[in-house]
Amino acid sequence: MRQLHKEQIETAMAALKEKTIDHVYFTACGGSQAVLMAGQYLFDKELTVPCHVYTANEFNYATPKGLSENSLVITCSHSGTTPETVEATKKAREFGAMTICLSNEEGSPLWEAAEYPVHYDWGKDVDASDLNKGILYGLLFNILLVLDGSKKWETCLNEFDKLNDLVIAEKSKFEITAKEWGKNQKRDKIIYTIGSGINYGEIYSTAACWFMEMQWINSNAIHSGEFFHGPFEITDYDVPFILVKSIGDTRFLDQRVEDFTKKFSNKLMVLDQADFDLESIDSVAKEYIAAVLSGVVIRQMVEAIAFERGHSLDVRRYMWQMKY
Amino acid sequence: MRQLHKEQIETAMAALKEKTIDHVYFTACGGSQAVLMAGQYLFDKELTVPCHVYTANEFNYATPKGLSENSLVITCSHSGTTPETVEATKKAREFGAMTICLSNEEGSPLWEAAEYPVHYDWGKDVDASDLNKGILYGLLFNILLVLDGSKKWETCLNEFDKLNDLVIAEKSKFEITAKEWGKNQKRDKIIYTIGSGINYGEIYSTAACWFMEMQWINSNAIHSGEFFHGPFEITDYDVPFILVKSIGDTRFLDQRVEDFTKKFSNKLMVLDQADFDLESIDSVAKEYIAAVLSGVVIRQMVEAIAFERGHSLDVRRYMWQMKY
Repeated sequence: MRQLHKEQIETAMAALKEKTIDHVYFTACGGSQAVLMAGQYLFDKELTVPCHVYTANEFNYATPKGLSENSLVITCSHSGTTPETVEATKKAREFGAMTICLSNEEGSPLWEAAEYPVHYDWGKDVDASDLNKGILYGLLFNILLVLDGSKKWETCLNEFDKLNDLVIAEKSKFEITAKEWGKNQKRDKIIYTIGSGINYGEIYSTAACWFMEMQWINSNAIHSGEFFHGPFEITDYDVPFILVKSIGDTRFLDQRVEDFTKKFSNKLMVLDQADFDLESIDSVAKEYIAAVLSGVVIRQMVEAIAFERGHSLDVRRYMWQMKY
Repeated sequence: MRQLHKEQIETAMAALKEKTIDHVYFTACGGSQAVLMAGQYLFDKELTVPCHVYTANEFNYATPKGLSENSLVITCSHSGTTPETVEATKKAREFGAMTICLSNEEGSPLWEAAEYPVHYDWGKDVDASDLNKGILYGLLFNILLVLDGSKKWETCLNEFDKLNDLVIAEKSKFEITAKEWGKNQKRDKIIYTIGSGINYGEIYSTAACWFMEMQWINSNAIHSGEFFHGPFEITDYDVPFILVKSIGDTRFLDQRVEDFTKKFSNKLMVLDQADFDLESIDSVAKEYIAAVLSGVVIRQMVEAIAFERGHSLDVRRYMWQMKY
C-alpha cells in the first residue's frame, strides 16, 4: 500500500479509536456496493458490532433507525460523483456518524462529503494492493485491529503486500482458460453467476456490471445457499453458470452447487479458489486474498468474451448518453 | 388471525418481554427467506436493535459473531423440513438465542427445533391474515409492540384484520390485467422483476421461485436502487420487466425506474400500489397491507402465464425428484 493511502487510513483510525461504534454501515451503488459487500461479510463474522450493507438510495430514503453519532459509515464511488452515494455520506454526517469514503478522485463531491476520505489508485500498471479492493481490505483490517484487536489482522495486512505478485501469477495461469471460456460462451444470451460468503459481492458485480451493463448479456447472481431453493430448476444442458468455489467457511455450499450442476449443465465454469497458489500466504489471510484473485480471473474471462463478441467493455447505450 | 396463532404469538411475546434482545436474525431459504426479508426491512427502519436476514446455510457455516443468548432468531419453513433452516434453528438454540419459527406443519422438525413455534394456515379458502405473510406481520407488529412500544403497531395489527376483504377486492380488480399479461408474455425467455424497500422480498421470490423454479423462465430480482448502476443497460424494446411501485418510503426509487424503462421497453408491467383501494386502512398500515396485496396480484399473473404456457406451477424436474 502506498504511503498516501496508509496515512489516510491512519488518520481515520486515530479518530476511530476515540469513538464508541455500535453500528457499521456500508453504502454505495452497483459495483462499488458489490466491493463493500466483502466488508459486511467479514465484519459480520468477526465483530459483534452489527454491520449492514445498503444500496445508497435505500439508505437515503428508508434510513435505518440505528444510524447515529455512534455509527461508522463507509461509502465508495470510483468517480466520487455518484449522487446517491454522496447524499448517503452527507446524511450520515448529518446524523453525526463517522464517515470514511473510498474513491479514485480526490476533491470529488464524495471526497468532500466524507470526514475521512481514502484514495485508491486505478489503471493497468498499478500495484494490486493500491486498487479499490486492496485498499478496502487494508481499511477493513485496520478497523478490525481497532475494534477487535486480534493480531491476525496485522498478519492479514502484511500478507496483502504480496497481492500483486499473486495477481500476476494467477493471471498468467488462467489466461488460456479465460480465452477458451470466452470463445465457448460468446453466443450465450444468459450467464448465471453463483457464489457465497465473501465472494457474493464479486459474483453480484459480475452479473450486474460485467454482463448486464457492459455486455448486455442477461444475468443473475445466485447465492449458493439459495440455489436449491428455487433457482436450480432453471438448470439444463445449455444453461451457462460461473461458480466461484470458496476456500472459506461456505465452501460446502459451493461444493453442493458444483456436484449438482455438473451433472445437468454442459456449461458450468468452476473457478475453484483451491487452484490458486497461496502457499506463501498465512492461513488467516488466504480467504481474502483468494476473493481478490477470483475477481482478477473473472475480469480476464469478461475481457475474453467481450473481445469474442466484438462488444467493448466501454460501450454504453444509456449510461453517459442521457439523463435518467 | 385465528385464536391458535394469537396464543402462540402471545406465548412468545411473554417470553420476549423477559429478555434483553440486542440482535434480531431472520433466517430461512428461498421463498421463506423472501417472506422474512420484509421483517428485516421493517425492523431496520423502526428499531435501533440491529437486524439481519440470511439464507440458512450461510448462517450455519459462517455464523455471525453477534449470535448470542441476547439474540432473537426467527426462522420459517412451509413444510418445516428444510434441513438448512432446521439446522439454523438448532444452532441458534445452542447459542442460547430465543427462537421463533413459522411453519405450516405442527410437529415438523422445525417445529420441534424452535422454542416458540407459530403456525400459519395454507390453502385457497384460508383467510389471508392466517396465511404465512399475514401471520408474519402479526408476529412482527407484536415484536415491535414489545421492543418499540409505539401504539401504531396496535393499529397495524387491527388493520390486518381487514386484509382478507382487500385481497378479494384486488384479486377481482386485477383479474383481467393478470390474464392479459400472461397471454402477452408467454413466449418470453426472461422476465426481470424490480422493486425496493419492503417489496424486495416479493420480487426476489417472484424471480427465484415463481419464474425460475416453477416456470423455468430466466429471471433476476433487481433492486430499484441498483437499476441505474449496471442492470439498466440490458433494457431494450423486447425485454420484459415487472416493477412493483411502492407506496412506502422508497417510492421515488421505483418511480425513477418506471420513468426510464417505459421509454425503452415495450414490455414493462408496473404494479403500482397506489392503485390498491386502501382508503379504509389507517395510513401507518397501508405500506404493509400493500406489500401483501402485491404478492396476491403477482400470484395471479404467474397463474395466468403458467396456464398460457401449459406449464403447471406444480411441475419440478429436480426438486422432489432426486437427492441433491
